[in-house]
Amino acid sequence: MNINKNYLNLNDSYLFSLIAKKVNEYKQQNPEKEIISLGIGDVTLPLTPAVINRMSKAVSEMGSAASFKGYGEEQGYGFLRRAVSGYYEQKGVGLNEKEIFISDGAKSDLGNILDIFDVNNTVIIPDPVYPVYVDTNIMAGRKIIFIDGNVKNSFLPMPDEELYGDIVYLCSPNNPTGAVYTKEQLKIWVDWALEKEAVILFDSAYEAFIQDSDLPTSIYQIDGAKNCAIEFCSLSKTAGFTGTRCGYTVVPKELERNGTSLNKLWLRRQTTKFNGVPYIVQKGAEAVFSKEGLAQIKDNIDYYLENARIITDTLNQSGIWYTGGNNSPYIWLKCPENMSSWGFFDILLSKYNIVGTPGVGFGNNGEGFFRLTAFASRDNVNKAMNRIQQSGSPFINI
Amino acid sequence: MNINKNYLNLNDSYLFSLIAKKVNEYKQQNPEKEIISLGIGDVTLPLTPAVINRMSKAVSEMGSAASFKGYGEEQGYGFLRRAVSGYYEQKGVGLNEKEIFISDGAKSDLGNILDIFDVNNTVIIPDPVYPVYVDTNIMAGRKIIFIDGNVKNSFLPMPDEELYGDIVYLCSPNNPTGAVYTKEQLKIWVDWALEKEAVILFDSAYEAFIQDSDLPTSIYQIDGAKNCAIEFCSLSKTAGFTGTRCGYTVVPKELERNGTSLNKLWLRRQTTKFNGVPYIVQKGAEAVFSKEGLAQIKDNIDYYLENARIITDTLNQSGIWYTGGNNSPYIWLKCPENMSSWGFFDILLSKYNIVGTPGVGFGNNGEGFFRLTAFASRDNVNKAMNRIQQSGSPFINI
Repeated sequence: MNINKNYLNLNDSYLFSLIAKKVNEYKQQNPEKEIISLGIGDVTLPLTPAVINRMSKAVSEMGSAASFKGYGEEQGYGFLRRAVSGYYEQKGVGLNEKEIFISDGAKSDLGNILDIFDVNNTVIIPDPVYPVYVDTNIMAGRKIIFIDGNVKNSFLPMPDEELYGDIVYLCSPNNPTGAVYTKEQLKIWVDWALEKEAVILFDSAYEAFIQDSDLPTSIYQIDGAKNCAIEFCSLSKTAGFTGTRCGYTVVPKELERNGTSLNKLWLRRQTTKFNGVPYIVQKGAEAVFSKEGLAQIKDNIDYYLENARIITDTLNQSGIWYTGGNNSPYIWLKCPENMSSWGFFDILLSKYNIVGTPGVGFGNNGEGFFRLTAFASRDNVNKAMNRIQQSGSPFINI
Repeated sequence: MNINKNYLNLNDSYLFSLIAKKVNEYKQQNPEKEIISLGIGDVTLPLTPAVINRMSKAVSEMGSAASFKGYGEEQGYGFLRRAVSGYYEQKGVGLNEKEIFISDGAKSDLGNILDIFDVNNTVIIPDPVYPVYVDTNIMAGRKIIFIDGNVKNSFLPMPDEELYGDIVYLCSPNNPTGAVYTKEQLKIWVDWALEKEAVILFDSAYEAFIQDSDLPTSIYQIDGAKNCAIEFCSLSKTAGFTGTRCGYTVVPKELERNGTSLNKLWLRRQTTKFNGVPYIVQKGAEAVFSKEGLAQIKDNIDYYLENARIITDTLNQSGIWYTGGNNSPYIWLKCPENMSSWGFFDILLSKYNIVGTPGVGFGNNGEGFFRLTAFASRDNVNKAMNRIQQSGSPFINI
């Protein structure tokens, strides 16, 4: 028997282990220093009371024969699919509950969706990028074309006449750059996909951070998108579910390729290879979409966005170029003095005792850039920015 | 772009929808009849107090910043992997915690494991069979060889000299037949796999039902298995987790093919395409393996096995041939009077108002056989068997 040899083409990612190694070395040499991490890609605020109360109740239900729940439908309970559909309604997007598939998170579905596509399709992936898009396609042996995100296009690459491919990944608000496509830009992508009969895999995991009402929070706010796009979303960042695991994927009924409904294919994939999300978790997720739940997560998102504002204030004062921060928990900055990503990492750590993420870890186009996140505590964000501001000419004199 | 055309080769399974349709029709025509289902493949007893208490505590932890948990390791928390390792120790199997991967259930992993194997491998699948083994391989376009389960081999097919394949699925105790391989039989399979350099995918989801201490509850109780087998297990039937979703997959460090560690490949697959099981669920799963938890699930399993004994008593009195029932929640019987699976279904429904599952739904070799399950309430099992016994010569005169 043979293994899937495509796996041998994967690069091991040493990004976060190298960061940890450097931080540990610094700590050992400077045990008295207080290091603040602005590199965290994980939420820090706890689950909100609405979610906790509903999950507590659901746990009790599972302990009594009368209310116990065994297997649920693989695609999720109706109560949660209807709650998600209601959330989309508020965005002006009408979805049938059969178009919504509850999952254990966007990461799983973004990888697993590839099951329903031919391995000979060509995939278009922006660089810099969330590494999962790249690795899952390498595993399947698909041809990958990278498109460039850079300062010129504000890290929002657009298709041109010559661009050809079958599947394209778009993530907006973007991880790692925090950049957000406008409706006009997404309309160009949708028209391109319709013309080429391509499929857009739209990762909207950070949509809840969008404050500007002109910016799209779902690709289905764009005419024609239901004929060319699958949308992946998650409660991980929206509601602090990174350790609770619940997301949803939308596959519109209109979406067909080779005369076959992609909704039907995905349903077949999920019923065969997945067994649904825990009842307890689905009940917690339902509570997120209640009036009380939505108000509570808004408070959390506002907290993170205020952190981002404090960070971008410092960048603005320093004249540093960046994307993100106002509609995203991520801030993607150009390293001052044309430093390399790792060069800036070292200086930020040694001079300010701040940890961030070198942009080059997200692809070649990330070299010379750096990601800060807004998920730290307010105290730590303030402390970190004070250190920079009090150093005189922040960043510039590094 | 093209879809994965292998999906078009899948047969839609109408088994359970056809059962539901027939039952509904009968109910409409006979509204006064009380129908008892012995067709359920899902647990009915609630989660045990040890699990409920620990999950309640975990929910509270998630509501406070100090004890909140974000992303965990994709392969599961150390506390749960160590608990599973301790469970294996009681079986006489030593496992390193890095050989254990916590998952959202055996069904997911049994499908997803195929990612790490070449699509050109040939797969050997027993018939009758759990349909997921077949469908996941059709989706990938793999060549499938079926091996026959039948009365002659008591539905425990064995390899012969000519059998060649790369991957073989074994499920013991079996779904749907309830048959259990002996250590001697598994040793023959292990030796065969080692000689052919094949890999055994061993589905032990029903291991907790084994009462006979001579029967193997893990393939790793067989010498050489760590060099040729991956084991999939689940808390679904062991501890009533069908709606709570937690299982585990064991990939031994010794297991290599093409000079590559399958443990490393699976770790790469899981870290890329999976994001772990909810913290709350992992805490509940840990409680299953506590002294108190193990005693509580033993009570539940004893309850189901007593149901099975009541059913097999009736079969014994009727001289009906069957497998399973004593080390399994499933009873697989030969339909009396050489009836077809659906013929017997119709008579069982109309004469006794009992619902079961036609064996032909599990593959061609299931024709003429029938599956009953022990997951109903004691009252209903007693009532159903009384109906049969009180009819005079049970089954025979149907």
